Amino acid sequence: MSETIVSAAAGPAAPTTGALRPLGLGAVTLDPDGLLGAWQQRNAEATLPHCVEQLEATGTTDNLRRIVGESDAPAFRGMWFADSDVHKTLEAAAWELARRPDDRLAEFVEATTALLERVQDPDGYLNSYFQGDHRDRQWAEPVWSHELYCAGHLIQAAVAASRSGTAAGTRLLAVARRFADLLVERYGAGGSAGEAVCGHPEIETALVELYRTTGHRPYLDLAARFVDLRGRGLLGDDPKFGPQYYQDHAPVREATEVTGHAVRQLYLLAGVVDVAVETGDTSLLDAAVRLWESAFGTKTYLTGAHGSRHRDEAFGDPYELPPDRAYAETCAAIASFSWNWRMLLATGGHRYADELERVLYNGIACSTSLDGRHFFYSNPLQLRTGHDGSHEDAPSQRLPWYSCACCPPNLARLVASLQAYTATVTDAGVQLHLYAAGTIATPHGTVAVATDYPWDGRVTLTVTPSDPGSVWTLALRIPGWCTAATLDGAPVGGEYAEVTRAWQPGDTVVLELAMPPRLVTGHPRVDAVRGCAALLRGPLVYCLEQTDLPDDVLVDDVTLDLDAPVEAGPGDGATVVLTARGSHHPAGGAPLYAPPGRVAGTPVRLTAVPYFRWANREPGAMRVWIPATT
Amino acid sequence: MSETIVSAAAGPAAPTTGALRPLGLGAVTLDPDGLLGAWQQRNAEATLPHCVEQLEATGTTDNLRRIVGESDAPAFRGMWFADSDVHKTLEAAAWELARRPDDRLAEFVEATTALLERVQDPDGYLNSYFQGDHRDRQWAEPVWSHELYCAGHLIQAAVAASRSGTAAGTRLLAVARRFADLLVERYGAGGSAGEAVCGHPEIETALVELYRTTGHRPYLDLAARFVDLRGRGLLGDDPKFGPQYYQDHAPVREATEVTGHAVRQLYLLAGVVDVAVETGDTSLLDAAVRLWESAFGTKTYLTGAHGSRHRDEAFGDPYELPPDRAYAETCAAIASFSWNWRMLLATGGHRYADELERVLYNGIACSTSLDGRHFFYSNPLQLRTGHDGSHEDAPSQRLPWYSCACCPPNLARLVASLQAYTATVTDAGVQLHLYAAGTIATPHGTVAVATDYPWDGRVTLTVTPSDPGSVWTLALRIPGWCTAATLDGAPVGGEYAEVTRAWQPGDTVVLELAMPPRLVTGHPRVDAVRGCAALLRGPLVYCLEQTDLPDDVLVDDVTLDLDAPVEAGPGDGATVVLTARGSHHPAGGAPLYAPPGRVAGTPVRLTAVPYFRWANREPGAMRVWIPATT
Repeated sequence: MSETIVSAAAGPAAPTTGALRPLGLGAVTLDPDGLLGAWQQRNAEATLPHCVEQLEATGTTDNLRRIVGESDAPAFRGMWFADSDVHKTLEAAAWELARRPDDRLAEFVEATTALLERVQDPDGYLNSYFQGDHRDRQWAEPVWSHELYCAGHLIQAAVAASRSGTAAGTRLLAVARRFADLLVERYGAGGSAGEAVCGHPEIETALVELYRTTGHRPYLDLAARFVDLRGRGLLGDDPKFGPQYYQDHAPVREATEVTGHAVRQLYLLAGVVDVAVETGDTSLLDAAVRLWESAFGTKTYLTGAHGSRHRDEAFGDPYELPPDRAYAETCAAIASFSWNWRMLLATGGHRYADELERVLYNGIACSTSLDGRHFFYSNPLQLRTGHDGSHEDAPSQRLPWYSCACCPPNLARLVASLQAYTATVTDAGVQLHLYAAGTIATPHGTVAVATDYPWDGRVTLTVTPSDPGSVWTLALRIPGWCTAATLDGAPVGGEYAEVTRAWQPGDTVVLELAMPPRLVTGHPRVDAVRGCAALLRGPLVYCLEQTDLPDDVLVDDVTLDLDAPVEAGPGDGATVVLTARGSHHPAGGAPLYAPPGRVAGTPVRLTAVPYFRWANREPGAMRVWIPATT
Repeated sequence: MSETIVSAAAGPAAPTTGALRPLGLGAVTLDPDGLLGAWQQRNAEATLPHCVEQLEATGTTDNLRRIVGESDAPAFRGMWFADSDVHKTLEAAAWELARRPDDRLAEFVEATTALLERVQDPDGYLNSYFQGDHRDRQWAEPVWSHELYCAGHLIQAAVAASRSGTAAGTRLLAVARRFADLLVERYGAGGSAGEAVCGHPEIETALVELYRTTGHRPYLDLAARFVDLRGRGLLGDDPKFGPQYYQDHAPVREATEVTGHAVRQLYLLAGVVDVAVETGDTSLLDAAVRLWESAFGTKTYLTGAHGSRHRDEAFGDPYELPPDRAYAETCAAIASFSWNWRMLLATGGHRYADELERVLYNGIACSTSLDGRHFFYSNPLQLRTGHDGSHEDAPSQRLPWYSCACCPPNLARLVASLQAYTATVTDAGVQLHLYAAGTIATPHGTVAVATDYPWDGRVTLTVTPSDPGSVWTLALRIPGWCTAATLDGAPVGGEYAEVTRAWQPGDTVVLELAMPPRLVTGHPRVDAVRGCAALLRGPLVYCLEQTDLPDDVLVDDVTLDLDAPVEAGPGDGATVVLTARGSHHPAGGAPLYAPPGRVAGTPVRLTAVPYFRWANREPGAMRVWIPATT
């Protein structure tokens, strides 16, 4: 048996090499008074228990129990890949238990681990859909079965349980390894499955993490093999979806654009970076960089979200970014976060940290209600008056659960480990990428972060060096959106503000990131937002909601005056809202098409709230992009 | 047996009452030198033979043959409702045979009729998908089976064969009646199926036409029953689509918006008008008017097309009309044409004739290539540079056939009977709705139409009254787009220009419809085309194609100068093209989001071609809506 090659207490992504090193799982503590810390607390108190409850309420855990005669449910319930919801919730619980003890969560992890042990076939196979009523189809449908996808989430749960030191960690890791060993046997070079890949990527990154945790090279080799085999037409050409849907149209090294199902593409790319880093394959990393530029140069929403089409849950064409029909799946945003974190660790590139922040505060944060128990699956940037929200494909409000419930437990696992994504280290010092009140313990020393970010741009850092007088560099990210930053009062520019000194206990550094309200417009080819502007402040995208307008002024009928100042002021729950001058152009009964002309407007005061908080007061229309006048 | 209650040679829609009466099938002859006549000729020479060939090449006719042991095909091929493609092609052939003799077509009708006679079950059932490999599921799946949809198209084919006097007409009508009688027995009040409707409307209008042809009241009663039962949740709530998808969320009398699958909604509404007219149900007609206003006030493309979403092939929300992701299905455009024709006959309303014209010359005409053998299923108003056209859901060019091949034979049946939609009569006179070179024979007399419409707005009408000196009114539609019309040189306004006189043989009237190039913009709530204008002339929508621009000027990067004159001039194939002044703003590498600013432009001459002719020269980007500058 091989050995662990990363710290036993590593975080969710633990490359063995790269420009920056992640911190251990327990290194960072977020203050629950800060936005990210409060989110993590809500996740622990509401979202995660809600997921555990829903696994029971929807029969998802029963799907596993009935395999071993512990449930009398007559049939499998839910999507055929619903096991993955159990695995993701298990992963979330494991990360959460690394932060704090919780008897109920520990019991959930223990009981679920024991259940998975009983359900697992002697050869290591574990998938309640195929073990139950569809044994004849086991391994038979690589395009749609999601068997390796589910295996990947099982592996990730086991890696988390192991790294977080939960009591069940060793046993769950053994379950995962038995399955992974079976996969190596079947899918590895010379294996019985021949050349094959799964329709839904996910196994790649999971196998690399398992390699990092166990040191067992065949897991890495299999991940690399899956990356290399993909794009060679092994999945066939499904007449309804086409090979782009599952990124089987071209090998990743040759692909020029992100395409197809957004979650699949982004999960694959996270795995591609993992494989590239562990194998030292620079050409593979180059491919990831090239596809990153396709994604973030032409196919990303202002909120950092991805996926312009409900049809096929797909990236669309370059610049096809409709705010109303944004699919912008929560899982795609989480996948983008994971991918950008890996790109940041691998390269140290500032732009990846910018995207981490953008998608976290907007594309991801938006998906959960303030009560932590309701979720968007799709995260549009506009909802019209008269929207038919009767269907879960495009509901008017967050729903407690979905028939395809991939997103809520995905949120739970990300947020439970959120602290791990704030900072990194190198031999030269400590790098802060996301600002959140809390404490960061590193080999160089501890950095206490005091800030009301993202509501305020002042970040005060108090350093306690491990070795007083040691010289190292504290690098503080200057977000791409920030055009005026100061460090201890002196203007600083560039990508990271660096302080190199012989640190003494109690040394303090103050970073001030000016965050005046600002306006952005879309690239001229983003036809869907032509003539509009969006309001932002700091990392936050803002939006107009109908509830902030008089009843007779529809949010569909207002324009924003670009020449008037936008003001920031206090909003609900210690948030910051923006107010701006606009006009109301009632246009209800006008014909659909008419000669050029302009509907007269009357002044109206516009209040914009953070996008991530929309649809938390009352149902109604919303828009991020506001028609602009000058 | 009851009697025919409309003329045996009636056209495709033959209400027994209404504001206007359609002319008989042979009453109108289109001149093949005119645009509509040439289209009809191309349909006869290319599209219709192509459909017949494709039915063979794709195994669609073999699906029927194998039921009676006349094909050794191992399994049913194509969509489970592929029988309807045979029925629609049969209908098209029947209409075509009413225009001119054609031995090969007559043989196709004869052979297919004989095949259907052999395939039909003794009780009247006829559906090769269920008769073949799925007999256990016959009648069992009303939501998805399309059994009544296929029955409807069979009935329409039989009605056409009967009205067009083809040799096989009587026999095909007998086949259709046997099936219809079975439907009355099963689905009529007290029938064995109880209260049930089909997931895909179509049977309603077919049964009314069958009633009109046979005088057999139970067919009408069953159509009325289907209309009344729909919207009561009988189809259940499919978790993926929701009841709006098949218009089962609300009874049509209560529905306030057109919604769901566009073809289903529009086929249903055609049937609703048919039922309302034949039963004298004014409240039902009121519902149709209300839904018409929803459709044409908030959910119609500039081309007259419908369906804003690929997902669910659906009408979207009001004002959700993206040009790039327009689904705009060809069949929906044809359904809209059918519905508007029925509304026009029922009410005499001018606006319905305007929509007939708009959708015919744009949304429908666009779908067929100049060679008559390639088709769009979806008809977008924009195609970007870099579009991934590899999938038939959104191809870059017209395709010869589709896995779901509903559209090509639907085009064939409409165009083969196109002459029937140009004019109507009343006791008071003759009404011309669509202008096309040809001859219109009516009880009042014959009207010879000489015109180069839509390229030129001059229409010369020469009248030969049946009874010289008889007094009647020739009513000539002034299209809604026309702001300057003259009749024999004198300005005329209103909806129809009327000439009432004692007509003498050779009397001539000249209508002149000024058709200068014009610009339109979208309603301010149509976010997807904000800041853009479209170029039109007469009934035609125009578009820019990449092929008309220099290689280094992408159609994605040009703007239109609203202040400069637009000029009309000769184009390919005796068409008219428009030229306008624009600017080129190269924006390729710019960031996706940036502070407000403007990319500098350089002048460029823009050439716009009729939208319906796009993608006939070489592949490339296209746009109807052009970003506008002033």
